[in-house]
Amino acid sequence: MQLIATPESMFFADALPLQSGASLRGYDLSFETYGQLNASKTNAVLVCHALNASHHVAGSYAGQAHSEGWWDNMIGPGKPLDTEKFFVIGVNNLGSCFGSTGPMHLNPDTGQVYGADFPVVTVEDWVNAQARLLDALGIQTLAAVMGGSLGGMQTLSWTLQYPNRVRHALVIASAPNLTAENIAFNEVARRAIVTDPDFHGGHFYQHGTVPKRGLRIARMIGHITYLSDDVMNEKFGRQLRDAVLAQARDASGSLDVGSYKYSTQDVEFQIESYLRYQGDKFAEYFDANTYLLITRALDYFDPARAYGGDLSLALGRASAKFLLVSFTTDWRFSPKRSREIVKALLDNKRDVSYAEIDAPHGHDAFLLDDPRYMGVVRSYFESISDELEGQP
Amino acid sequence: MQLIATPESMFFADALPLQSGASLRGYDLSFETYGQLNASKTNAVLVCHALNASHHVAGSYAGQAHSEGWWDNMIGPGKPLDTEKFFVIGVNNLGSCFGSTGPMHLNPDTGQVYGADFPVVTVEDWVNAQARLLDALGIQTLAAVMGGSLGGMQTLSWTLQYPNRVRHALVIASAPNLTAENIAFNEVARRAIVTDPDFHGGHFYQHGTVPKRGLRIARMIGHITYLSDDVMNEKFGRQLRDAVLAQARDASGSLDVGSYKYSTQDVEFQIESYLRYQGDKFAEYFDANTYLLITRALDYFDPARAYGGDLSLALGRASAKFLLVSFTTDWRFSPKRSREIVKALLDNKRDVSYAEIDAPHGHDAFLLDDPRYMGVVRSYFESISDELEGQP
Repeated sequence: MQLIATPESMFFADALPLQSGASLRGYDLSFETYGQLNASKTNAVLVCHALNASHHVAGSYAGQAHSEGWWDNMIGPGKPLDTEKFFVIGVNNLGSCFGSTGPMHLNPDTGQVYGADFPVVTVEDWVNAQARLLDALGIQTLAAVMGGSLGGMQTLSWTLQYPNRVRHALVIASAPNLTAENIAFNEVARRAIVTDPDFHGGHFYQHGTVPKRGLRIARMIGHITYLSDDVMNEKFGRQLRDAVLAQARDASGSLDVGSYKYSTQDVEFQIESYLRYQGDKFAEYFDANTYLLITRALDYFDPARAYGGDLSLALGRASAKFLLVSFTTDWRFSPKRSREIVKALLDNKRDVSYAEIDAPHGHDAFLLDDPRYMGVVRSYFESISDELEGQP
Repeated sequence: MQLIATPESMFFADALPLQSGASLRGYDLSFETYGQLNASKTNAVLVCHALNASHHVAGSYAGQAHSEGWWDNMIGPGKPLDTEKFFVIGVNNLGSCFGSTGPMHLNPDTGQVYGADFPVVTVEDWVNAQARLLDALGIQTLAAVMGGSLGGMQTLSWTLQYPNRVRHALVIASAPNLTAENIAFNEVARRAIVTDPDFHGGHFYQHGTVPKRGLRIARMIGHITYLSDDVMNEKFGRQLRDAVLAQARDASGSLDVGSYKYSTQDVEFQIESYLRYQGDKFAEYFDANTYLLITRALDYFDPARAYGGDLSLALGRASAKFLLVSFTTDWRFSPKRSREIVKALLDNKRDVSYAEIDAPHGHDAFLLDDPRYMGVVRSYFESISDELEGQP
């Protein structure tokens, strides 16, 4: 059965106070829902998105080929998160460039596009905005919140900000905060964007420019960190591009490895060609200010900071049951980081399941079809479903 | 005893044929020597440099404070490579921006600065140029060649290009070629440089500009890969800058963690401040075309390519004795890569020593003072010295 997705939008007139002290006047949230909310409104699952994704989590848009949601392999009829049983909600976060109010929208205070003046939003702010959407949908308690990477951070934050509204939390390929190395990669990406002369201090819309050079570099850096060294070697290795090799073949067709063209600026290796393609594609659709906002939300997230760095103290407020999943070759959000969360939850005697999946794909693995990973999530949702059926 | 270094330069009138098929007409090599060449000319050690270093390997320049060579902790009187016993030579590679002929020099064919027209040079080309310098110095056989990182690649290449001229090879924190991930990081750095509007296709000298934005990004990426995740966390962690914290302190001086300023473009974390500083410093002195050339030399190096990827076949020509050293937290040139070289040499029944040093500093460790590392190199050179004294 094909799942048809229909994007919706809701306007919120009340100002949203933000962690920075600023507040956001009247804003829109784009969202999609799949499946049916049951009569007792207990089967809702909120799915939180990561850096470059959106509310379009599952299904396809009617009449649009290749319009599958970003987690369509995970969510849908008969899939691990089964929309025959659960009412699934995807929300686009504030500050994004995919529909919810963000830097490309008008600032009601000035009548101008926000641009760089869009307030800094944090994971906590996003969760507060998501909670208001649930209020509007009449959902008091979520059967589960689920997310990977930055989406996992939102999931974790849900269990701390609204402990009574979350029964289960699925925190996948995530971390209790970024390491210095993670922040460093974000910082380089941001510097590439803000030092692009087309950025104009974040007000490039008025100048009719787009800081594509910076966005390309940012995306290339991102892609390197999403993949494992192993999978990169397997996919691309040190292979020269076909065109380069063709040039180096002699008249008999055999390869003269010493005679290919040497160049400092041309694309010679396949990995270069892949990265340039990814960078170019991203620069066509992603907003530079959104990139800055979302990477900053990643940097700032640190629920233990208010507890002197003690994660066990910080997670004491959580009362949900947890499933954590990590992937062995993920060096961006390594298994070690998931185990920190597991430990802190166990210190609080919380109910925690943890799966460390042996997958070669690095951080990207959380979006891919590893059978063991899919199986773990499927069984977890089956047990939630059993719980729901068992309750009055 | 303080070692005083004196830079020298030598002109080579004969054209140097390059691996690309091009050749370099009349060129200069900058170099320094330390210690005394013995009567039999058997105690010479060539030290090869990596990406941003030079011929100024050891000692200081007379009257210049803080002018120590880049490997001054390793090389000098009484140091692991003891200049009381060995005659040590540092050479600046072609294409560099520190004295030897490079993109900033005049192209004799055109009378213009080379810029982007400087021919692509490879590790093999550098070794050929170094061999000509040794010819000029009257040195037929080297007691040892030594280098770290890209310098280790030159060392390895010496044993293949001039097997009869090298008795010992010290290959430190190196690899038989770059992985796809290594190439990917180089490619992002290069894209940052060549897409900087001040690059002008590599002919920025004529435009009176310097592509500093690109150089800064390149260096920031480099620095992340030189350090280990652990050492970054230890040095910087998630610490906010003092100024940010000061602002967040309330009247009583206690920290209100919720109230520091939130910003997408300011420097908030100490790691950011460190990276920006490193990037700014580098952009002041390093040449953009040199950066492209040297990273390309890294990408292209692959002695096994001509042997269908079989490193054991490729290293069959080497007859030197080897010391390989790697560092446990080096993820740029990991111990696994050094072990590939060790294995290939053992397949050829070569004399190989290998030390895997448990050091926290990542790739940078090869420049630092780890006592076990220093001890291993010291003993190795002592045994070379004993060999020299034992010979006729």
